[in-house]
Amino acid sequence: MLTYSFSDIGSESLYEYLYGRIKNDILSGKLRPGVKLPSKRAFAKNLGISTITVENAYALLISEGYAYSIPKKGYFVSDINISVTDAIDGDGEPEPEYFADFASNSTPHALFPFTTWAKLMRGVLSERRPELMRKSPGGGIAELRSAIAEHLYQFKGMRVPPSQVIVGSGTEYLYGLIIQLLGYEKLFAVENPGYGKISKVYGANGVKLSYVPLDDCGVKVEALKESGADILHISPSHHFPTGIITPVSRRYELLGWAAEKEGRYIIEDDYDSEFRLNGRPAPPLRSIDATDRVIYMNTFTKSLASTIRISYMVLPRTLTELFYKKLGFYSCTVSNFEQYTLAEFINGGYFGNHINRMRRYYRETRDELLKAVSENAAFSRARILEQNAGLHFLIRLDTDASDDELIRRAHRHGINISCLSQYYADRDIAPPHTLIINYSGVEKEKIPEAVRLLGRACS
Amino acid sequence: MLTYSFSDIGSESLYEYLYGRIKNDILSGKLRPGVKLPSKRAFAKNLGISTITVENAYALLISEGYAYSIPKKGYFVSDINISVTDAIDGDGEPEPEYFADFASNSTPHALFPFTTWAKLMRGVLSERRPELMRKSPGGGIAELRSAIAEHLYQFKGMRVPPSQVIVGSGTEYLYGLIIQLLGYEKLFAVENPGYGKISKVYGANGVKLSYVPLDDCGVKVEALKESGADILHISPSHHFPTGIITPVSRRYELLGWAAEKEGRYIIEDDYDSEFRLNGRPAPPLRSIDATDRVIYMNTFTKSLASTIRISYMVLPRTLTELFYKKLGFYSCTVSNFEQYTLAEFINGGYFGNHINRMRRYYRETRDELLKAVSENAAFSRARILEQNAGLHFLIRLDTDASDDELIRRAHRHGINISCLSQYYADRDIAPPHTLIINYSGVEKEKIPEAVRLLGRACS
Repeated sequence: MLTYSFSDIGSESLYEYLYGRIKNDILSGKLRPGVKLPSKRAFAKNLGISTITVENAYALLISEGYAYSIPKKGYFVSDINISVTDAIDGDGEPEPEYFADFASNSTPHALFPFTTWAKLMRGVLSERRPELMRKSPGGGIAELRSAIAEHLYQFKGMRVPPSQVIVGSGTEYLYGLIIQLLGYEKLFAVENPGYGKISKVYGANGVKLSYVPLDDCGVKVEALKESGADILHISPSHHFPTGIITPVSRRYELLGWAAEKEGRYIIEDDYDSEFRLNGRPAPPLRSIDATDRVIYMNTFTKSLASTIRISYMVLPRTLTELFYKKLGFYSCTVSNFEQYTLAEFINGGYFGNHINRMRRYYRETRDELLKAVSENAAFSRARILEQNAGLHFLIRLDTDASDDELIRRAHRHGINISCLSQYYADRDIAPPHTLIINYSGVEKEKIPEAVRLLGRACS
Repeated sequence: MLTYSFSDIGSESLYEYLYGRIKNDILSGKLRPGVKLPSKRAFAKNLGISTITVENAYALLISEGYAYSIPKKGYFVSDINISVTDAIDGDGEPEPEYFADFASNSTPHALFPFTTWAKLMRGVLSERRPELMRKSPGGGIAELRSAIAEHLYQFKGMRVPPSQVIVGSGTEYLYGLIIQLLGYEKLFAVENPGYGKISKVYGANGVKLSYVPLDDCGVKVEALKESGADILHISPSHHFPTGIITPVSRRYELLGWAAEKEGRYIIEDDYDSEFRLNGRPAPPLRSIDATDRVIYMNTFTKSLASTIRISYMVLPRTLTELFYKKLGFYSCTVSNFEQYTLAEFINGGYFGNHINRMRRYYRETRDELLKAVSENAAFSRARILEQNAGLHFLIRLDTDASDDELIRRAHRHGINISCLSQYYADRDIAPPHTLIINYSGVEKEKIPEAVRLLGRACS
């Protein structure tokens, strides 16, 4: 049996000492994963200590993940090498390092206005102390809601009452609030293909989902009607991943669908509409909705930094009342410190400048990418699609390779990439060999080499 | 019919001008709430403009909340005086100003370490730029999780693996994550009496609740067993509002209940355990749990500031794996900026100092309150209960007045107060005329006058 001497025990208690010795043996590999530890009684007897001491040491090992217990069987050594620590540095899986990542949504470091943000934060911390400690209304502090309403008017010509703006820590959080607001029994329709996280959030919240197919103008209205959905979640300004921009005529059709029946709503997810690079943006559904059926959503995680968790939604009037009645007890999930700083960032005109700077940067990045692709022989028979609305475009390849094979080959060349087919609920009907070139996270200076590597993977 | 002249129109479009004129008439009261606006066609004909122009003006009025439409009936003027703006500056209701508020959970402004926080934030903003822009793992950045684990060890003797710590923007948000993790079909048991927000969160998430009664040691185990609950949500270190501290023997009984059946878990809500003012704290359930059944929760909203939305939970090992598998796609809801600043605040020892300073302050506040109460004739026959565990105590009055009457009288004297009976699911069985003196939000210098006013209200 496992045995330890207590001769060199210091000021530690017996159980802590025992815990430390066993832990060391697990870490060093002396005790292998799956090995059964001695029973508490036998071990205690063997070591000449009380059962409670062994029990406490085992409890500590378990609470730290070094051991586990199986009822009526005993205590066992954990496999610390497949410990959860491995799983927590990405979205559930460790992410390998790529030379260039066309599948991520990060924003380039160099673009974040650190100096301005630091200056404004400093000002807020020294001048707004009482407000910083005063409870924020559930929908966010009034100043930020007004700044957002003003921004929507300046940048999109939308007029929204600040009282209907609800601020929250990310759109994923706000989706959850919407479900709580509208009810778990509702049927939600999402776009197919579509941004996978949206259906994941609905799935995790336990609501029923319907996948509605798209045509060139966005969600098919007939299919939507047949789905029996109550709520439609769409991104009409720039669909991910197809890039489709829903034209005004279809927007009116969708509003017509919503108006047809009591309790229908459209969630208009306008996540990257700040980055439409050419031409005038189409009017948001919200701004042409006369029937109070559109929940408009947008986020600063795209336009400012993905690591600042601030998003917002603009509720219809009737839902705003319901929100404060039903969910008004919730605290706003964004700290006052960042709410005030962001309000000043918008009101001071810094946000407008920042967006313009980002747009310029992204336009240059895209142009450089398109140029490198057009000059690369590997893409001579490929088609470029949807390059005008922000942050990603598509390359349809003329190839026999499967999408899985393309992705694997790209990985071998140090390039992370995704394919259109991955965003379809049913991959069989998806258009094959269409790469999604999401360029928001790729540094400009890496483009020539990244395209060269991608070309080698695709030829 | 309503009519306007377009003679003084400036550079505005026709519909904006029309919108502005109608809005002014609504604001000035010339157009009263409920009044029907002219039909689009008739109005357009009357004004000599197109129907589309009227439609656009109406849409704008509706989107700003000045008008509403009833399908097939027409457009009506909103009652802007009961507008939602009134409702959004508190928890759904406007809060009157009180001389002293014994019912709020705010933290005193003067205690927040603004200078230190500003210094650390400045350092983070200048030295940690790449990390600030790098996506946080779903459970929070590693540095903060480690700092929290170290803090739990230093302050409570708990050893928890940082990998099992999950950071989120407030405990209310984390409750929602737990429901998503464990499943919507589970039956959750909460304490009766208990902190109302907890049951509100479960209610809003659509899960079934069971209210379990307490005795002097906390949740009654027999009643818990009879409830058929899968999950028990408790605050054993310091129950709100009764102040009960669950003794170790009962803690083991509760752990026994959890171990009895697969899938049972205990949520240990340790919201204010930093502020136990006398004696050694009881060991957290989590630290004596050998069966991996306790979800430990705590928050910085109590110990730092209610307006910084950072809380955390420590999941059992098996649930951590499930969390990353099932919910790992979620982004962490706390911004990197505040996660790094808080990590440095804890690691630099500032948090420990801050807690000690807060404890001293609260102990002085409590002592002064107790002294003022004992010297006031109105309380000569009252009993003081549960004054040793942090931030609130109870006064049981010898009075015939109903609780509603006591609260109304206190309000008339400028004091906001709550009664124990308000926290019972069934008020009939609640002990009457027991005031809850929550002193975290009351400035020390106001105490003598606040107690004098309260005494007048109670006598």
